[in-house]
Amino acid sequence: MLQNELPRFEILSPESMATLDRGWRRIVSEIGVEFLSEEAHELFRQAGQRVEENIVYFDPEFLLEQLKLVPEQFEMQARNPANNVTIGGKNMVFSSVYGAPFVRDGDVRRDGTLGDFQNFCRLAQSFAAMDSVGGVVVEPNDASLDSRHLDMVFNAFTLTDKFIMGNVVTGENAADTIAMAEIVLGGRKSIEEKPFGYSLINCNSPLRWDDRMLDSLFVYCRAKQPVIVTPFLLMGAMSPVSIAATLAQQVAEAFSGIALTQLIRPGTPVIMGSFLSNIDMKTGSPQFGTPESAVGQYCIGQIARAYKVPFRAGGGLNASQLPDAQAAYESVMTLMPTFLAGANVVLHSAGWLEGGLVSCFEKYIIDIQILEQLIAEFQPIEFTDDDLAFDAHDEVRHGGHFLGAAHTMENFRDCFYRPWLSSSDNFERWTRNGSIDTAGRARAIYLDTLDKYEEPPMDEAIKAELVEYVAKRRVELDG
Amino acid sequence: MLQNELPRFEILSPESMATLDRGWRRIVSEIGVEFLSEEAHELFRQAGQRVEENIVYFDPEFLLEQLKLVPEQFEMQARNPANNVTIGGKNMVFSSVYGAPFVRDGDVRRDGTLGDFQNFCRLAQSFAAMDSVGGVVVEPNDASLDSRHLDMVFNAFTLTDKFIMGNVVTGENAADTIAMAEIVLGGRKSIEEKPFGYSLINCNSPLRWDDRMLDSLFVYCRAKQPVIVTPFLLMGAMSPVSIAATLAQQVAEAFSGIALTQLIRPGTPVIMGSFLSNIDMKTGSPQFGTPESAVGQYCIGQIARAYKVPFRAGGGLNASQLPDAQAAYESVMTLMPTFLAGANVVLHSAGWLEGGLVSCFEKYIIDIQILEQLIAEFQPIEFTDDDLAFDAHDEVRHGGHFLGAAHTMENFRDCFYRPWLSSSDNFERWTRNGSIDTAGRARAIYLDTLDKYEEPPMDEAIKAELVEYVAKRRVELDG
Repeated sequence: MLQNELPRFEILSPESMATLDRGWRRIVSEIGVEFLSEEAHELFRQAGQRVEENIVYFDPEFLLEQLKLVPEQFEMQARNPANNVTIGGKNMVFSSVYGAPFVRDGDVRRDGTLGDFQNFCRLAQSFAAMDSVGGVVVEPNDASLDSRHLDMVFNAFTLTDKFIMGNVVTGENAADTIAMAEIVLGGRKSIEEKPFGYSLINCNSPLRWDDRMLDSLFVYCRAKQPVIVTPFLLMGAMSPVSIAATLAQQVAEAFSGIALTQLIRPGTPVIMGSFLSNIDMKTGSPQFGTPESAVGQYCIGQIARAYKVPFRAGGGLNASQLPDAQAAYESVMTLMPTFLAGANVVLHSAGWLEGGLVSCFEKYIIDIQILEQLIAEFQPIEFTDDDLAFDAHDEVRHGGHFLGAAHTMENFRDCFYRPWLSSSDNFERWTRNGSIDTAGRARAIYLDTLDKYEEPPMDEAIKAELVEYVAKRRVELDG
Repeated sequence: MLQNELPRFEILSPESMATLDRGWRRIVSEIGVEFLSEEAHELFRQAGQRVEENIVYFDPEFLLEQLKLVPEQFEMQARNPANNVTIGGKNMVFSSVYGAPFVRDGDVRRDGTLGDFQNFCRLAQSFAAMDSVGGVVVEPNDASLDSRHLDMVFNAFTLTDKFIMGNVVTGENAADTIAMAEIVLGGRKSIEEKPFGYSLINCNSPLRWDDRMLDSLFVYCRAKQPVIVTPFLLMGAMSPVSIAATLAQQVAEAFSGIALTQLIRPGTPVIMGSFLSNIDMKTGSPQFGTPESAVGQYCIGQIARAYKVPFRAGGGLNASQLPDAQAAYESVMTLMPTFLAGANVVLHSAGWLEGGLVSCFEKYIIDIQILEQLIAEFQPIEFTDDDLAFDAHDEVRHGGHFLGAAHTMENFRDCFYRPWLSSSDNFERWTRNGSIDTAGRARAIYLDTLDKYEEPPMDEAIKAELVEYVAKRRVELDG
């Protein structure tokens, strides 16, 4: 797990931070936030907030009080304890693309299948940079709609030994996820102490929390499992065409959602989400890797730190239809700001294409390569006199080269990060090897990785119990 | 011209800076720097430095005294005064790839020609993000070796009205560049007051300044034209496999070269160069966009600011053979650190492929797109209550959308940067339009840009004088 040891890139003046503060306070108190849940209304009313129809009007100070209950940092458990992660502080945790209905596999773009889902699990398990396969890495369209969450949780738990994400389609699905996590991780007490993973609760922005999402939020928070409370903001559509206005809205939505988590169960871990980009104002299409989304990320990091709450942002986002130059530059222009902002949780770290409609195998490999390079970049840096390697200069002196210097021979194995997708072959050698572009090389690596994949061992009794649970619930759900 | 208004990303502690300080002082005083120039030796001797054989042993304090003579900021003139630029401070200036012998044009990779050179001039002229076509944007291999610098300077001056770079192959070439700049820009006095552009003087690292490069440096400095004094460092080959040791060497090389410029003509503008990446320790190939090169850039910016000298770094560097995903991610992973470091001068901003061996037309367009997005990202940011657009929230309230909100209608035209290479078309539309990847779209834009290009007008008398100068000198050089 990465500890991001470089400084945080903070671009907002105290005056701009004060402006944002005025902004969200006015939104929550004058416009309020809609919650489509009687249960939520009741909790907010009991806490002294004004509820009219479905709108909750907040005292900003109440929201800040609730925020103080949120743990600044917490641990999550994987079924292999070596893969446990800590959320918050300098830690950064990476999980895959989430929610894509389609898959791209070489030249073919088609509906995602359970087989694809399984293959993404295998890829996530194979690369140390990925802390989790995530949740709906691709929609398994060939599985029954009512029970496919069982398949996804089962496969994530058996094909990987990393932490997983919970299903949020219904409260019942959330309960199934928790039940299966209890089987794998040693019971309710165990996961209440160390959650099995996070789940993604999106706001129906602007300023509306839907019943379905809230149902899942209630289930997870009661079990003390963290949710990522995420305003879903494409500026121009779900928020005004202004970064400041969007950030004020984002804080209003996030703080109101977080407040609810703490009313349900005080001290429940929670992650402030951010999904912030903009639409093309001419066509209405979502755009990614934009200057505005990068600026938004820098700001969100600064805001989250000011309120001492772990936050999620970024990923390898792009609007490209292919794993080509645009996919790469937009992804890095989202992912580098993610690192600079110091996001604690990064969804969509690998595989995202076409604005999130497509999970792409080749892009998954490209993203892992990018991720590894950034992880190598954001390591602690401190220069000592040893690092000056004066003896090397003294040995080589003027106009020579360091290839055979003693200092080089001692350090060449691990002095630099060595990429495995990127090619620095000269043109002749690259041509001899078939003139294969980056996507083509990524394809070979993805297929080879699947080939070499080995399922991480699982206790037979636990696996049997899991299989039994899935079978029983499948009958109940699919009839 | 960009004023980079975001904060600088500085990652070195005072202790690390002190380590580097010890490092370069020891190198310049104990190992010394080689200068293959009697004239340089004489100047350094007169200034009280010890010279033995070709090695100059420096008093570090002397170097720092020389550094104080360097202007912190200076202006350079283009033949269209609207394109003048300022070097130093928050300013960032961008010029194209420099020095590539080969060209890539679609699927064809071949020797560069003068025709290619001219086309790159036309592209540079067509995009506001490019402050200059630069110098040897591609080697015109079909032009006479002895006189092709005349062709390059002539074409850069006539096909663009932006500032140009000087030729550095010989001192005589440098003198020709100056003579032609005098014709175009109103004589010697004019260019001594406002230089015509910068020229690239590379160190033959480690710790050697070659006679040929020094000849050009002498000619330019005597005419008060800025040179970019550039240590050329691929860690593992030209410097030790340690970032700290490489930075110490870089400072030693740069400061010794800068000191010479100030002995030749005190107060001559000069730019501290940096070209820092690493080789693949298994194959010896240069690599770009690496974590180590990014870290090096952050550090170089911090060092340059500590010594108050304008600096050059970065660009769209990559090792890729094609304008594909690798080319894009490596380029952004070099270019974003360039912005974060606040480099004043950025060579290789567009067109670079294959470790600088190839100038690629499609990559040129891709880089301009990336550059424009980063330029949009690094604008001043300050939030006011107006930016909060409370009325928009009040209008839309809960669960609606902002597409038709009054605030949106008032601001939609210029609220976001709008990319023109990146596609956010949905899959169906993209397929209908021919399923063209980013490189293919870049190709169409490059060809269309050439099609629409108009030569910027030039005073006929000046042009005639320039033509006459070239003709006369061509006879003298080619015989």
